[in-house]
Formats: sequence, structure tokens, C-alpha cells
Amino acid sequence: MNEFELIRTYFARQPVSRADVAEGIGDDAALLRPPHDQQLAVTSDVLVLGVHFFPDADPESLGHKALAVNLSDLAAMGAEPAWFLLNLTLPEADTLWLEMFCRGMFRLAREFNVQLVGGDTSRGPLNIAIEAHGFVPPAAALRRCGAKTGDRIYVTGTLGDAALMVKQRAGKLQLPLLALAAFSERLDRPTPRVREGIALRNIAHCAIDISDGLLADLGHILERSQVGARIFLDRIPVSETCRSHLGQAGWDTVLAGGDDYELCFTVSPGKLEALEKLQFSCRFQCIGEIEREPGIRVMDESGKPYHPRETGHDHFAEKTK
Amino acid sequence: MNEFELIRTYFARQPVSRADVAEGIGDDAALLRPPHDQQLAVTSDVLVLGVHFFPDADPESLGHKALAVNLSDLAAMGAEPAWFLLNLTLPEADTLWLEMFCRGMFRLAREFNVQLVGGDTSRGPLNIAIEAHGFVPPAAALRRCGAKTGDRIYVTGTLGDAALMVKQRAGKLQLPLLALAAFSERLDRPTPRVREGIALRNIAHCAIDISDGLLADLGHILERSQVGARIFLDRIPVSETCRSHLGQAGWDTVLAGGDDYELCFTVSPGKLEALEKLQFSCRFQCIGEIEREPGIRVMDESGKPYHPRETGHDHFAEKTK
Repeated sequence: MNEFELIRTYFARQPVSRADVAEGIGDDAALLRPPHDQQLAVTSDVLVLGVHFFPDADPESLGHKALAVNLSDLAAMGAEPAWFLLNLTLPEADTLWLEMFCRGMFRLAREFNVQLVGGDTSRGPLNIAIEAHGFVPPAAALRRCGAKTGDRIYVTGTLGDAALMVKQRAGKLQLPLLALAAFSERLDRPTPRVREGIALRNIAHCAIDISDGLLADLGHILERSQVGARIFLDRIPVSETCRSHLGQAGWDTVLAGGDDYELCFTVSPGKLEALEKLQFSCRFQCIGEIEREPGIRVMDESGKPYHPRETGHDHFAEKTK
Repeated sequence: MNEFELIRTYFARQPVSRADVAEGIGDDAALLRPPHDQQLAVTSDVLVLGVHFFPDADPESLGHKALAVNLSDLAAMGAEPAWFLLNLTLPEADTLWLEMFCRGMFRLAREFNVQLVGGDTSRGPLNIAIEAHGFVPPAAALRRCGAKTGDRIYVTGTLGDAALMVKQRAGKLQLPLLALAAFSERLDRPTPRVREGIALRNIAHCAIDISDGLLADLGHILERSQVGARIFLDRIPVSETCRSHLGQAGWDTVLAGGDDYELCFTVSPGKLEALEKLQFSCRFQCIGEIEREPGIRVMDESGKPYHPRETGHDHFAEKTK
């Protein structure tokens, strides 16, 4: 099978066919028709073997996650996903691997009606770069710079499960089998909060998706909005399974662990009623408040300041020339 | 320097600032305003260490080429470049390397007024994936499927220089110093034929950029257009330096070598006059004609059929499970 047959076989046969795609895969570029009344939101994320996943990673989950992390970025802007491109570098055209990878990727693509319209394949160390496009009405986008003093800080779903699983896989934790199943699902097949992001248009002041850890990602909002925050450990939503293993891993894993792909957003007190009326498929929980003073103040269960040792993920922090 | 400082330092300080970018680098996604009356052309291309370039490749040239190959794809659609995203995986945040890489990339970006609006960075084996966006009026795009029997086949510039340089670097040729300088410029810093692609709207029936070799890329046009072609070796434009080394490398290097990033396009006899009036910054040359019979017939200088041994580049042809 040569490169072109491979692309035809695995990528041209995809489940979504949108009316706004004039030309999809197969020419020098895709030809697309964005809606006239909306802005185009564009994002990309890379997954690299040995950095974002282990060599024995299940290809079906990888296909899911590579697309999910990009849809999560669109969700964090309040954008509706439409199209994506896949740049796939892999050591060999392993047909079973490709079949599983596509299964995971295309199942999620079908769920969110997002069409693969192009990309590139090459031989080389496994590297998956996806770029996703979505639409959002002008002025409705949930940018990071919108947080105001007095806003309530919310997160969707629960935090920490994925980070515990990363520690388990790195050999730093010993979790029971039951926890492994739940946590690996959270780490390997995150659910992008696309519907929630769209619902939060005109309600939230700003949003971000939690990929590098709550503290790091909330920190981005604070920095761009030039404000600070106070958050409360006992309000941070964690799963029962996660709570029962916090003794081993500690709150730092929840605060700084990342890979949650939940949304963190802020809402002014005047919009709380509108927020409560939203029908989310997941819970959302107020974890604190935006304050004028820069920085994040974490309060523990007894109301005392808690000082995290870790602050979030950074690919280049350890070793820089 | 951490990941965020690195991005701020090297990628946020970029030379182009377009009015159609509502939000560039720094949020979960870029927010863009495509023009109402045009289609959006989107393409991506990956450069991988050890596949597309050697470990000692000059980072400034790499920065140029990574963007150039994408602009070349837009050119082949007749699209006007606007924005791009950069997904960069590199072993370490080497500041000198990044500075040179950005210099090459941003010089070209400035030349074509194309703005970096997002991307992702990660640690890992060197891998550069760029995705470029451009605009083209509806029905004006130069698609691969438009060639008709009787069309003349043209190429811009000259072919073969880059392919000879690849052979030299692989140790298969011994070129004199003077040739090396000229050929490495062609291989490492190709000129995307953006202005030519735009000028060919409403004149050419179809176009493709020659990245995998003339035979392979013309082959894509023929396949999509369901036609064939006859081309003539003595009409294929080659530089004087290339011609003087054809004895060593042979015509196959010119026909199948790739990396030219010239445009191959077809024009109906009725449009030849309009074509001749175009002001190109490079020459363009008729190399043959579209025929009904499928396949490519190459004729040598004496009018006899020439049978190439190579047919073009394929990343996965050698080793597939």
C-alpha cells in the first residue's frame, strides 16, 4: 500500500459530509464555506509519543484523544466545531493501527459533526497534529481576557482522575483495578465540553479548558484578565474514586495535574440565575471568586491558605538551553 | 525559559498584523474573519527530520521551507494566503535554533502578508507541521479535476535542481561547488508561486504544485480529470546548471525528483492568448498536451517514447505491513 492508497483507504472514507465543504480531501487544499455571520475559530494541538502518551497506547484511544483535545479548545471559545485536518507522522503504514486510530477519531467526529478535510502523512517518529475549525458569532467567543472582579469561578465535571492515572502509569501510584478502569477512560478518552461551551456564550465572561492543570489554566485567565482569584479546596469537584485516593496523591495532583479537559469559566453575579437554568450533561461547580489582587489564593478545608508545590505542566521547563 | 515564555518570545513577536485577525496567538483558538465573498482554502504539510531534511539542516532554511511548501499548496489552488498555524515538536528549546527558524519563516510570512495565528509546541523528535489558510473566489479555484483533452500543459520556472541536490546530499552525485550553491537554494528555499497561482485564476483549467515530482503530480491531475498526457523531454525547462549535469543524473531525476515547488497547470487553446499576456516573475513553458488516453507518454528528443524508471516520491512505498 503506498501513501496515496493509504490516505484513500483510511482517511477519505470518513463518516461526516458537511454542506459547507466545497472540496474535502484530495486536492492541494480543501475549499470551505464559512458562514457569513460568524467568526472562524482555529486551533491546533499535537500529541507526541513519549511526551503525551506511552508507546503501548491504544490507537483507538489516541485517535479519540487527538481530536478531543482540539474540540476541547473550540469548546473553551464557545465555538461550534466544523472541520479538522490531520497531520500524521508514523513509523510505518501499519494497517491495524490505522484502522483502530481512525475508528476512535471518526466516532468522535461523527458525534460532533466535524469533517476531516485534509492533512498530511509522513514516515517518522509517531506524532499526531490535528487542527480544528469552528464557528462562533462575533463578540460571543469566550476569550481568556474577560474575567472581572467579583465573578464566580466554575468548573465542569470533576478534576483529578486523569492526573492520578498519569501517576499510576509513571509508577508513582498503586491504584486498585476498579479505579484504573475509570481513570484511564478519563485520561485516554476525554469528553470535549462542546455543548457546554456553546451554552455558555453570553453567560460566561471567559473560559479555558483545563489541559495543563487547574492552577496553570486559571492562571492564564487571570494573567490575560489582569485579576486574581481565591479558590477553595473543599469546593473542587472530584469523583468519589479520586477522593478516596487523595491520601496517596494529595490535592496537588488535582490542582496541577492537567489532562482533565473540563472547562473553567467565570460568571458575573448577575448571570448566575441564567447559568443555573442551563441544561448541562455534566455538573458544574463554583470553586471560588475573581479578586482584584493578582495571584491565586488556595484555601484548605479549615479556611487556611494552602500552598501547592506543583503548579502545572510545562513541556520545556526542565531543560532549556 | 518555559514553554509560554518561549512562545511569547519567538512566536508572538511576528511581523504581520492583519485586519481580519480578531484574536491571534494567546487564547484557546484564534478568531478570524474570512471575507464574505470568497471560499476558504486550507492545507497542511509536515516536515520530518530524517525524511524531509538532514539533521544538519540550516534552521533558517527550514523555517522558510516549512511555510513555503504550504504557500505553494495555496498557490496551486489560486488562493491568496492569509493565516497560518505552526505545530513545532523539538528536542529542546534551543534559543539560537528558534531564532534562526523564526527568521526564515517570518521573512517569507512578511513577503506574502500571511500572519501566524496559533499552533502548538512540544518536546520530541523534530517535526514541523504548518497549516495555511487562504482565500479564493467561488468557482475560481484551480482544482486538479479540471483538465480537458486538448489543453496545453505548462510548468513555471525550471525543474530538477532540487532533485539533483537531494542526490548530492545522499552521496549519489558529485556536483561542483558552483552548482551546489544554486541547487541548495532551490531545494532549501523554494519560492512559492503565489502570484502566478492567483494570476492563473480564470485562465488555467487546473493546477498542482510539483512537490513529489512532475510525473507523480501531473499524474494526480490526470487521475482526477480522467484524462492522459503526452509530454516532451526537450520542452521541459531546466536550468543551464542542471542541463550540464543531466549526464550524471539523467532525465528521471528531473521527471520524478520532486521538491521543485513549481506549478504545473493546463490551459485550453482558447486561453493561450490571455496566458501569454500575464506578467510572471518566472518563465512558464508548454511541455505537452492533455490527451483522452489515460497515462503519461513521455517523448524523447528524437520523438521516440521514453520510459522513466522512477515515477515519484512516496513516503510509504518501501515498507508497508
